[in-house]
Amino acid sequence: MSSRNSLNFSGGPGALPESVLRQIQQAISEVPGTGLSILGISHRSDWFAAIVKELEERIRALLGLPASYHVLFLQGGATQQFAMVPMSLLREGSAPAEYLHTGYWSGKSLPEARRQRPIRVLWSGEDCGFRRLPEDEELRYSADAPYFHYISNETVEGLQFRRVLGRDDVPRICDMSSDFLSRPCEAERFSLIYAHAQKNIGPAGVTVVLIRDELLQGQREDMPSFLDYSVQARAHSIYNTPPVFAIYVVLLVARWLMDEIGGVANMERINRDKAALLYRALDESEGFYRGWAEKRDRSEMNVAFNLGSAALEKKFIAEALAAGFSGLAGHRAIGGIRASLYNAVTLQAVEELVGFMDEFRRKR
Amino acid sequence: MSSRNSLNFSGGPGALPESVLRQIQQAISEVPGTGLSILGISHRSDWFAAIVKELEERIRALLGLPASYHVLFLQGGATQQFAMVPMSLLREGSAPAEYLHTGYWSGKSLPEARRQRPIRVLWSGEDCGFRRLPEDEELRYSADAPYFHYISNETVEGLQFRRVLGRDDVPRICDMSSDFLSRPCEAERFSLIYAHAQKNIGPAGVTVVLIRDELLQGQREDMPSFLDYSVQARAHSIYNTPPVFAIYVVLLVARWLMDEIGGVANMERINRDKAALLYRALDESEGFYRGWAEKRDRSEMNVAFNLGSAALEKKFIAEALAAGFSGLAGHRAIGGIRASLYNAVTLQAVEELVGFMDEFRRKR
Repeated sequence: MSSRNSLNFSGGPGALPESVLRQIQQAISEVPGTGLSILGISHRSDWFAAIVKELEERIRALLGLPASYHVLFLQGGATQQFAMVPMSLLREGSAPAEYLHTGYWSGKSLPEARRQRPIRVLWSGEDCGFRRLPEDEELRYSADAPYFHYISNETVEGLQFRRVLGRDDVPRICDMSSDFLSRPCEAERFSLIYAHAQKNIGPAGVTVVLIRDELLQGQREDMPSFLDYSVQARAHSIYNTPPVFAIYVVLLVARWLMDEIGGVANMERINRDKAALLYRALDESEGFYRGWAEKRDRSEMNVAFNLGSAALEKKFIAEALAAGFSGLAGHRAIGGIRASLYNAVTLQAVEELVGFMDEFRRKR
Repeated sequence: MSSRNSLNFSGGPGALPESVLRQIQQAISEVPGTGLSILGISHRSDWFAAIVKELEERIRALLGLPASYHVLFLQGGATQQFAMVPMSLLREGSAPAEYLHTGYWSGKSLPEARRQRPIRVLWSGEDCGFRRLPEDEELRYSADAPYFHYISNETVEGLQFRRVLGRDDVPRICDMSSDFLSRPCEAERFSLIYAHAQKNIGPAGVTVVLIRDELLQGQREDMPSFLDYSVQARAHSIYNTPPVFAIYVVLLVARWLMDEIGGVANMERINRDKAALLYRALDESEGFYRGWAEKRDRSEMNVAFNLGSAALEKKFIAEALAAGFSGLAGHRAIGGIRASLYNAVTLQAVEELVGFMDEFRRKR
């Protein structure tokens, strides 16, 4: 926002565009034309219904989403979806759902599913320390699985799929929390996509769900209503009080993405350039900076890497912070360094980071 | 915030104190001392852990809460609690939990509980149109109920209990969403208290739960982890990404309540004065304004009333809006007018509203 502020490479909650932050400041005072602060506007107002409608339409437009999908704004993050998906779609006696275990976050999805019913893990990267993703030849999908679930981008290890997985005759469910709206995603090939906001699209507290109409079938009798996708779809995400502020911010980000960036294809080009710049700095460092992931599976959102020792990594993080780069500590699960390059991180911010990294290396 | 802004009498999301709004604006730009926007700070940062700790301590201090309680900050609102409570506490074969049906919102709690197990409704105000609350003689509590659940303040009808209900040997559970921190509440007499934020304590998107340690017992095997009070308690509300912004705003409000207002006893005196002023305007209007609730059970938070006809009510709401009073339309369930007098609504705002009401009446 100001020149004093750090450049934010946090894994999430992540940076937001500066023009969006300015609009939020105005809305805290007064949402233009309403006479009210965004924090005091009723979720039952016409104003808020129009906000939800516009946001839904913009997400449809950004992804080319067919009318057969519902666009929902829920709470509880991906963790809630880890439970809602199996609670909604698994039935007694059905074949096991199929899951991939490609890193820290997909690892979190497995016990939540198992709490409901047995599942089948098609592939696990545990033995290789989650440094690579599976190839197609390693995956034996079943035709009778009630659904197939995977995570498109593993934020902790910095691994990202560059293709759509699964088979077309089994409902495909994807956690896109950390790369949603960072690139085109062939949404119409998925039965259900979910993404919490605090990476690319807004602040923590709201989760976007895209769900195909045919998945809103009969629900188990003991399902709490707020976990029932069909209840939420009928209520257009205003079943009970939704997180009004967070949804408003996601709309501001969607407007920015459409009107200032020009859509997800443009966003992907910018994100690709940012990632290429940083990975080049790793690859040309003569082993000083060592990327976590195998090159083929490198994420364009999260760049995880190590230095020669934990002590040197600590020094790197401290000096970076002093130089105005924040959020660079790796996730506590694997340590090291992680630079997250979400949509709102600018190419210039990455250039400055690379400049700092080159200088840090030359000083050793 | 500015003189242009409306005075906000909304039933929720409700008004916030002006000094809090100013601090939020600053935090959108940069949280003092962090170099980061509140919307870009990691929930795993030391800064945020300190925020949660300070908020927990302030809530303990405001309510004189014993150490045997956990203070949790969850998502999903009261609706989520309507389900979490029976999912957590009802077991196969146990006696039915006991509920009161005192208005619109307690009516919402019943089907969520019944989805888990049969319950017993001790008293319903349905026959009297939810215009009064039960007297002690009307309530026959059972000693073997797993818990007793009620709502301290019905926001739609404007009914509020002025005493603690239930028996001391049965866990007492109360939804205090719309009067939490508006007055002292004898918290230590309850096993579980919950309150979503968007009335007295902050913006929509966070729910405060006070739960006695002994309620965190063995959980059913298929319980999703995010709905498990014990998981949330162990993680100090940072099990998965919490709504960072909303929690921060609740802290700002708690500071305001302690440091500017001087605590909940002072807050109660102010709220009592505000409500008395408005009810006097009804009572002295010679039947022009007719209160919904019986006098004995009138809420000090939500004042629901009617005018002679729906047409006149529509005119009242429109003229009030034009005069700078917003959020006065009654809840869609019962119509009419509702003025909500949450903590952040000032005595001066109520005086101005009463002035408008007197003038509106004289003009007829």
